[in-house]
Amino acid sequence: MATKTDYLPEARCSLARSLQVLGERWTLLIIREAFAGRTRFADFRDALGIASDLLTNRLNTLVEAGVMRREPYQEPGARVRYCYHLTPAGEELSMVLAAIQQWGDVHRPHPDGPSVLRRHRSSGRPVHVAFVDDEGRPVREQDVGVIYVND
Amino acid sequence: MATKTDYLPEARCSLARSLQVLGERWTLLIIREAFAGRTRFADFRDALGIASDLLTNRLNTLVEAGVMRREPYQEPGARVRYCYHLTPAGEELSMVLAAIQQWGDVHRPHPDGPSVLRRHRSSGRPVHVAFVDDEGRPVREQDVGVIYVND
Repeated sequence: MATKTDYLPEARCSLARSLQVLGERWTLLIIREAFAGRTRFADFRDALGIASDLLTNRLNTLVEAGVMRREPYQEPGARVRYCYHLTPAGEELSMVLAAIQQWGDVHRPHPDGPSVLRRHRSSGRPVHVAFVDDEGRPVREQDVGVIYVND
Repeated sequence: MATKTDYLPEARCSLARSLQVLGERWTLLIIREAFAGRTRFADFRDALGIASDLLTNRLNTLVEAGVMRREPYQEPGARVRYCYHLTPAGEELSMVLAAIQQWGDVHRPHPDGPSVLRRHRSSGRPVHVAFVDDEGRPVREQDVGVIYVND
């Protein structure tokens, strides 16, 4: 008989499946640091103050899930080390991070205001995350209906 | 001297602050069940297969953070029990859940397809999460520039 733990990775719900990779505080903070340009193990560790074994564990999970890729590098006179880059799948998490940050800006605000702003690269206009329909028209949150698909 | 643990809840980054509440797999699954209409402790427990003490702990965190509210109820002949509802702040997590599900539909797909669909309540058109500018115009992910605000 399958236990709950065996069952969850196969769950039909994509939220549940995503959270198998993402549902842990450190994981999204590691991804935040990757978006900020960090690639080296020591830089992730120092930026986050995370224990090395926990960081190794989370990076391995992200590599196995195809969210980050590991690459060797070597500085003169030093041993081979590894750096970590977001894959295209990892880069597509930018909207997830933005949605969480946006919620936090409103519901977990800091006295000094947001620490991250998003702007259109060419027009400079503020950018946020929103619901839109298939023709790109904004949809208010209260107008979004959720359909649960049952097998 | 503040430890890292003392420091993080005060962190300037709203992602980090949000993940103090949300950055754990069970938490977002509890919120998913709340959106699906569950309110009672036993219903959350049975739907998720989560241990009671862990569920109590996560619900308490969500109530303290203002994401859910606890209300007593009493059935005839039974003792007072408590149910849990999303607050307005909790309901605004619908976009976070949608962003994660959308990513999972693409990068952690299930052979039977998505388990949740979003549609405009009146037009019936498919709805998704996207970046838009301050005039509601869609912005491509690669056109979103991120500005890190330093104190």
